[in-house]
Amino acid sequence: MSDFTAQPLDGDPAARVVVAGASGFTGALAAEIVWRHPKLELVAATSRGDAGKRLDRLYPRYRVPIELTELDLENLPEVDAAIVAYPHGAAAPTDAALRAQGILVVDLSADFRLRDRETYERWYGEHGAPDLFGSGVYGLSEIYREQLREAKLVATPGCYPTASVLALAPLAEQGLLSEVFVSAMQGTSGYGRSSDDLVHFSGMTENAFPYKTEGHRHRPEIEQELAALGSPAPVTFVPHLIPLDQGELATCFGTLAEPTSKEAVRALYTKRYADEPFVHVLDGPPNLRAVRDTNECHVYVTVAERGRVMAFSAIDNIWKGASSQGVQNLNLMLGLDETAGLL
Amino acid sequence: MSDFTAQPLDGDPAARVVVAGASGFTGALAAEIVWRHPKLELVAATSRGDAGKRLDRLYPRYRVPIELTELDLENLPEVDAAIVAYPHGAAAPTDAALRAQGILVVDLSADFRLRDRETYERWYGEHGAPDLFGSGVYGLSEIYREQLREAKLVATPGCYPTASVLALAPLAEQGLLSEVFVSAMQGTSGYGRSSDDLVHFSGMTENAFPYKTEGHRHRPEIEQELAALGSPAPVTFVPHLIPLDQGELATCFGTLAEPTSKEAVRALYTKRYADEPFVHVLDGPPNLRAVRDTNECHVYVTVAERGRVMAFSAIDNIWKGASSQGVQNLNLMLGLDETAGLL
Amino acid sequence: MSDFTAQPLDGDPAARVVVAGASGFTGALAAEIVWRHPKLELVAATSRGDAGKRLDRLYPRYRVPIELTELDLENLPEVDAAIVAYPHGAAAPTDAALRAQGILVVDLSADFRLRDRETYERWYGEHGAPDLFGSGVYGLSEIYREQLREAKLVATPGCYPTASVLALAPLAEQGLLSEVFVSAMQGTSGYGRSSDDLVHFSGMTENAFPYKTEGHRHRPEIEQELAALGSPAPVTFVPHLIPLDQGELATCFGTLAEPTSKEAVRALYTKRYADEPFVHVLDGPPNLRAVRDTNECHVYVTVAERGRVMAFSAIDNIWKGASSQGVQNLNLMLGLDETAGLL
Amino acid sequence: MSDFTAQPLDGDPAARVVVAGASGFTGALAAEIVWRHPKLELVAATSRGDAGKRLDRLYPRYRVPIELTELDLENLPEVDAAIVAYPHGAAAPTDAALRAQGILVVDLSADFRLRDRETYERWYGEHGAPDLFGSGVYGLSEIYREQLREAKLVATPGCYPTASVLALAPLAEQGLLSEVFVSAMQGTSGYGRSSDDLVHFSGMTENAFPYKTEGHRHRPEIEQELAALGSPAPVTFVPHLIPLDQGELATCFGTLAEPTSKEAVRALYTKRYADEPFVHVLDGPPNLRAVRDTNECHVYVTVAERGRVMAFSAIDNIWKGASSQGVQNLNLMLGLDETAGLL
Repeated sequence: MSDFTAQPLDGDPAARVVVAGASGFTGALAAEIVWRHPKLELVAATSRGDAGKRLDRLYPRYRVPIELTELDLENLPEVDAAIVAYPHGAAAPTDAALRAQGILVVDLSADFRLRDRETYERWYGEHGAPDLFGSGVYGLSEIYREQLREAKLVATPGCYPTASVLALAPLAEQGLLSEVFVSAMQGTSGYGRSSDDLVHFSGMTENAFPYKTEGHRHRPEIEQELAALGSPAPVTFVPHLIPLDQGELATCFGTLAEPTSKEAVRALYTKRYADEPFVHVLDGPPNLRAVRDTNECHVYVTVAERGRVMAFSAIDNIWKGASSQGVQNLNLMLGLDETAGLL
Repeated sequence: MSDFTAQPLDGDPAARVVVAGASGFTGALAAEIVWRHPKLELVAATSRGDAGKRLDRLYPRYRVPIELTELDLENLPEVDAAIVAYPHGAAAPTDAALRAQGILVVDLSADFRLRDRETYERWYGEHGAPDLFGSGVYGLSEIYREQLREAKLVATPGCYPTASVLALAPLAEQGLLSEVFVSAMQGTSGYGRSSDDLVHFSGMTENAFPYKTEGHRHRPEIEQELAALGSPAPVTFVPHLIPLDQGELATCFGTLAEPTSKEAVRALYTKRYADEPFVHVLDGPPNLRAVRDTNECHVYVTVAERGRVMAFSAIDNIWKGASSQGVQNLNLMLGLDETAGLL
Repeated sequence: MSDFTAQPLDGDPAARVVVAGASGFTGALAAEIVWRHPKLELVAATSRGDAGKRLDRLYPRYRVPIELTELDLENLPEVDAAIVAYPHGAAAPTDAALRAQGILVVDLSADFRLRDRETYERWYGEHGAPDLFGSGVYGLSEIYREQLREAKLVATPGCYPTASVLALAPLAEQGLLSEVFVSAMQGTSGYGRSSDDLVHFSGMTENAFPYKTEGHRHRPEIEQELAALGSPAPVTFVPHLIPLDQGELATCFGTLAEPTSKEAVRALYTKRYADEPFVHVLDGPPNLRAVRDTNECHVYVTVAERGRVMAFSAIDNIWKGASSQGVQNLNLMLGLDETAGLL
Repeated sequence: MSDFTAQPLDGDPAARVVVAGASGFTGALAAEIVWRHPKLELVAATSRGDAGKRLDRLYPRYRVPIELTELDLENLPEVDAAIVAYPHGAAAPTDAALRAQGILVVDLSADFRLRDRETYERWYGEHGAPDLFGSGVYGLSEIYREQLREAKLVATPGCYPTASVLALAPLAEQGLLSEVFVSAMQGTSGYGRSSDDLVHFSGMTENAFPYKTEGHRHRPEIEQELAALGSPAPVTFVPHLIPLDQGELATCFGTLAEPTSKEAVRALYTKRYADEPFVHVLDGPPNLRAVRDTNECHVYVTVAERGRVMAFSAIDNIWKGASSQGVQNLNLMLGLDETAGLL
């Protein structure tokens, strides 16, 4: 294919960026979004297993023509910021090394999401950079926007917590939630690139199933954030895999601390998200096609017949649920327009 | 195509059967199952809009080579039983006319599912055969088997109630359920044949969404049956459409009247369904491919971290959720082996 | 949803545009592309059946927030150009009326593609604007670029001719093709919005089939263009529907007038398309995901074991195969950068 | 899940069967079909990598509850026949060892399909049992039925040759074909279980592409069989992968040695396949859903506008294209009804 290697930059870049771990689904997308970004220069995209391959060949649906290289922390190219798309556990030590060189870090892994060490260790094992534990800012800009503007290390939320917390935040902030049940569903991009029988097209077409029924590590993350907002409600959570690529729907049932009308609940949501550039409160159920390949979160809330709240949110799990949300965070850290490169 | 019109009957048929409304998804499948059944003779399959067409041309995935005819209640062929796959409201008067001629009726519509007249009218409008209201036996053989053996008019349960009630029955029977939340998902065969933008392949691929969020008429049916079993629990219910053809998953959250261990809950399920030919209690999450094109219901139950029950069930929504369950009922009504034609 | 009605224009628009017939698949996409275009102002999008509906509600995957109105040719808003997405036959009279008011017209229908009146009538019936018959420029900019710069009425090619002619043009231009066989496949967006059993998700998933096996009207269009290029070769053509939404692949077999090596053939292609912004000659087989939602055409050519040419091309059937190609043409007609709004 | 380990045999089995290589797609299906077969006893299903796993857990869509074991050729259980689903090259030595013990062998690999040693070596490398080379009977019962009744070693045809040869045989037998072009498409089950990026659901949904464009080893197999029937025509062949699980469509273009009318061609087909239990000549284009999970081949033939033949055939690539065709062959070898266990 004819090469088209120059990035479509709009003037001088605001930052030079490396994406570490760019051969996986979220890292590759992060590289693509940075490459298309008018103000970020993609200096390198790294991978251990696929070094030497061009990213747009590995992922024909992307444009970024960069060749993957190995990350050498001792001899980094000059960069201002890094997006780290490593597996949980492996990310923290790399983050630490990057921070030690003064580089801004957006971590897409879970390593800096949880603020309780014991909970972290229960779900993820020993932490890879204990000195930094808890020092990341939780990268949900709709809630932590001001802290993110000052942040040097950001923990991009998990995809399910992103969808669930945005679906419930207006209620949680009022202390209204007394118990929460979340049934979520996601496409196979959430399963990651490492293929096996489950996500072989032949196994997944005309199929769907719940998974991690005995406990998913996103549950404590959701509980942590709802509590931080004002509703320390117990959360019961179960995810499902459904036969599509990109998209995630969180269906949240909530019991309310006090009876609240449908109108009052909706007014809370409309007001809460009125100025959010990426959260849209709908007047009917959301659908996944409407958010595919976007950084948007579509929310709908209603009060069901038995007085229980049902709040729905739809995101693209590898965009708003991971990579584009990481870039949204980076925009804030760099003082750029929060929506740059994301509309 | 070479015709192969003779039914593969095994000796004399036990009953001559007509399927009324055989051009829709559930009626066509009912005709197919009857046609393959070793003991039932498919005498006619009827349709208003598609009379004159051969059923296996209308539905290339089926074998039944019968030509659709119009139903003439005044001049019925000699039949012993009818499966009625009419829309809600339209089924009842036809059922009444068939019963008046002494014909056994398996109704796939909602017309005889609800036992409270007011509830029926709220969700479905005026009843089409008021004298017969409430006279049908609820066709969930796992619960009403003995009554079904004597029944003349059977109301085949809705697909969501089938999945939800089977998922929760062992707990409901012990009076253990104090509140229930059901998040269910279904393929497009549940939406019916009448096409529109929503189920056009171009609208549905890579899409999923909740629907009927303000209230679905299967909710009171689920409540009715859980109460009848011993747990008059409030039910909050929401269904989703996902991009597959056949398959339905009910994800049920329950709060328990008293703390019960995972082991105790599972023992209840294993015992309750030990002798059921079509309900299998799994030791892990069910998946839809395993029940596709079968009359099976796969159930899995666990107790989640916050002490809440999660019960899952997977069925094929147009098989066990409609047509093959109708034939299961007919087998019982006719004194045949309950599994005849369904394994 | 929060409204976001202002178009993201970059300075003064170069033209005010109406899209007529914007409720169908190609018209809706044309409106979306115009709305996102930095230099075109979308003045109106019209529809008879869906007037009053907002386009982004009808097609949740699109952003264009315009409300559909009825087209009133007597009282048009001030517009410079129109994209007409009407059915074949109905487009021509509207095109004529628009041209009579001096409006530039890009027609997405077949009404001005064929240059032989008899052939047109055989495949499409009587022409709706006989005086204008043959007066359109064939909108394949890779071949008719100079004429398009002067054109007032452009006939956007059919999707299959777009893919097939671009796959074969470098050989056709050398007079090398003596016979051509094209087996093409397309997703359901090519079938159009008018739903029926064939494109119901339940009928299409896990299915694929040839259609129009007795003759497809795109065949004479392919023959016309190959002949115009220098190879009046007989073409045998058959299309297939496959279970995806957007995407079209043309697999072309050609017998060569004289033996030509794989290297020589490939050199022809590389040279021919070296400066084309949207045609990329690959060094291996194309795939549909790589062109989805783009105006690109990916071409690959090889010489098979028996000395026959195999040329493949992949496009998005409603983008390069219809709507975005229409905008590419409009860019040329308006003297804009050909790629404006399309990268 | 409740176990249901007894095979549903109908009286004494006609043969005890082992399936070797039962963890792959075709081997697993062969085990399933044998297990459901009323006259074949499934004695063992073997696998190196998955020994110890139960087959119905590995493939939830199947019922066969047998535990996979390792094949020990020195200590075989008492069996009369084997179905060998090994990779090409590995199958031949196992076949030889089984034959040496007097066991009937149905080989699903390519090791005994080609009758020209040089061609075999070019496409598959050195043969694993040179003494037996060419000694297998080609397992296309519609052509070699009589030889198959006497066969001890059968080479089940490749999926593409099965579809292509059945699509063209009536013409080939008359010596009418002078050149053939085949464009075929197949679902991901044809790609095999060994997952990689290509058949990850995320890579395959909304995608399609040609593969093996520089030469596919099924081409010489198709040429061999057409020549054997009477038409030594050059064949140009290219396969495509499309986003479905099971199903294969061969679209065949043929130039005829002499002009022949559509009616004459169709009469040839109707007559040729009149008595075939599994080949149905349709009066319109075939579709894949109609043959899914069956041993059927649906054929349609027409003469296109330029006088070229188009012949289409649809099969399920892992049923008639592999495993069920293997059982069809075994039925013949054992003197059973050819259709036993396959309707």
